[in-house]
Amino acid sequence: MPSPSDPFRDALAYKPSLRTPVWLMRQAGRYLPEYRAIRAQAGDFLTLLKTPKLAVEVTLQPIRRFDLDAAILFSDILTIPDAMGLELCFEPGEGPYFKHPIKNPRNIEQLAACAPVEHLEYVWSTIHGVKSEIMGHKPLIGFSASPWTLACYMIGEGPRRDFEDALCWLYQYPTELSQLLSILAQHIGDYLIHQIDSGVDVAMLFDSWGGILPSTHYGACAIEPVRQVLNRVQAVHPDIPTILFARGIGSRMEMVRNLPIRCLALDSTVDLSLTRQLLGNSLALQGNLDPHVLYGTHEEISKQVHTLIQSMDDLTGFIFNLGHGIRPDVDFKNVGFLIDCVHQETRS
Amino acid sequence: MPSPSDPFRDALAYKPSLRTPVWLMRQAGRYLPEYRAIRAQAGDFLTLLKTPKLAVEVTLQPIRRFDLDAAILFSDILTIPDAMGLELCFEPGEGPYFKHPIKNPRNIEQLAACAPVEHLEYVWSTIHGVKSEIMGHKPLIGFSASPWTLACYMIGEGPRRDFEDALCWLYQYPTELSQLLSILAQHIGDYLIHQIDSGVDVAMLFDSWGGILPSTHYGACAIEPVRQVLNRVQAVHPDIPTILFARGIGSRMEMVRNLPIRCLALDSTVDLSLTRQLLGNSLALQGNLDPHVLYGTHEEISKQVHTLIQSMDDLTGFIFNLGHGIRPDVDFKNVGFLIDCVHQETRS
Repeated sequence: MPSPSDPFRDALAYKPSLRTPVWLMRQAGRYLPEYRAIRAQAGDFLTLLKTPKLAVEVTLQPIRRFDLDAAILFSDILTIPDAMGLELCFEPGEGPYFKHPIKNPRNIEQLAACAPVEHLEYVWSTIHGVKSEIMGHKPLIGFSASPWTLACYMIGEGPRRDFEDALCWLYQYPTELSQLLSILAQHIGDYLIHQIDSGVDVAMLFDSWGGILPSTHYGACAIEPVRQVLNRVQAVHPDIPTILFARGIGSRMEMVRNLPIRCLALDSTVDLSLTRQLLGNSLALQGNLDPHVLYGTHEEISKQVHTLIQSMDDLTGFIFNLGHGIRPDVDFKNVGFLIDCVHQETRS
Repeated sequence: MPSPSDPFRDALAYKPSLRTPVWLMRQAGRYLPEYRAIRAQAGDFLTLLKTPKLAVEVTLQPIRRFDLDAAILFSDILTIPDAMGLELCFEPGEGPYFKHPIKNPRNIEQLAACAPVEHLEYVWSTIHGVKSEIMGHKPLIGFSASPWTLACYMIGEGPRRDFEDALCWLYQYPTELSQLLSILAQHIGDYLIHQIDSGVDVAMLFDSWGGILPSTHYGACAIEPVRQVLNRVQAVHPDIPTILFARGIGSRMEMVRNLPIRCLALDSTVDLSLTRQLLGNSLALQGNLDPHVLYGTHEEISKQVHTLIQSMDDLTGFIFNLGHGIRPDVDFKNVGFLIDCVHQETRS
């Protein structure tokens, strides 16, 4: 357990803290030279992901180099369907995809019977390894994709970024889609429970693709399956804080109001201070600097950090982050500069 | 001029009408067999676009086949940069791109000097041709992309869908980007003025990519350049109704409040009735059925149309449309069924 005064846990509990916590999505990644060295050693991304010794090292790299307030497990949002037998693939220049996607809605039921947690031993080992290294000095975030986001990748054929097949299922196979989302909610819940059992301190759900849902289906397909996951997790681990990254939530902010989350993570399109006005002073907010700021000069980075921090009336319950992951080609020195800026701007 | 009782113009003027007008984004397109025949005759998309006789025919095809309330000029959102010398290209399986994109921010100034309207004669000819065929029986919509949307395609290299280079310019070259948006606002304004001079009845701006802008830049980069365009157009043609398609506007709805538009067109992620509550009963709304509904059964299409219509307390000032263009592989019979559903649901 991290010490009781750690700023990340304070912010999640909406308690005042010595400083505003900061961590960055994809802080363990290709922009770091030490990551690229390990990645070359592993040979390919999947080997890196599934070799706990290497995944531990990659998880720790950014917290060794930078003054960050949390570590995030080095993993992928698509581990569960991979463990269900869909076989995760990465091709250069394409997004991730599955070799055996779901083409036939009649095949949904058999997915309920599989037990992906039996094939995710490498994740528990990585968590054990990280925890034994950081010795409670930093909180560790575990995560999964949300049910809808997994469904986007699982339905249809080959690598594609528009998830047309999943969107067609909204109208072609609404019953089967709903069934798939429920099955995924159970598997994701079990996965997060196992991550927590293995040692993660905070659980985060990435709803990376809820943004493409029409307003008519956002509640049923994005929010309610997330609620099912959270209920399942909290029945076993009521005290573990949970974060939802609701990418593309846009105008649907009201819909998270009664979700059992401690923190809402937002993309860069949303105004954080307006969100706080809308959702009130009890839900922590995380975000949301545009990751493209990291391509700017130090002066520009400093200006954008200042603007974001100044927009918040009260920094209690605020976790500084980007609105999306760090791009692989940014200069790691700019990342260090950004983190220092946040600490300078927010030290109380 | 269309007859004074036409439902589309009534809705734009926020006046009660005999029926709710309906037209569909990309109603002239690949899902129609008669379009594919003309497209084959033209050989390639650019020839089709730039041959007025064929473009007239393609504009008229959907209004001949279906009971639609408006025609939209068959054209492309990227005609202006093409006419500025960037050379529009289409590769199978890729989005459109420019052969000579803007790589160097120092080259912006010279773009102010060019006069794209001198190279868009084919557009005026198409408009003349359509107008002489429809003889005022249907209003004709002319259009352009917004300045930010054009900038997304103009900045950077080759076909890509994420517009990373334009987003980097927000921080790397903010002054030059602002200059580019101003130059584009002038060219777009002039283009729409020429379209109106040639006979279009309504002018529409497609801000297809404002949605990717961070909240810090949405006003300056998406909204203000649109305002510049509209001011320029309305100085010459104060009575021509204007529509803004603010795709991805999401949580930024308040920002259109004082724009000089008659109608806001919305994507499917937004709830129309909440938008009307927010923006009041004077701005017409257009949208926003998910285009994937067209892959459903007739029963499903009918249900989704019913849900959307029922969500509107008052159909005055409402134009039925999709939230995005018709996909090329939908069954045209479903499009006809959808249009009939709208008329049945909304006839007063």
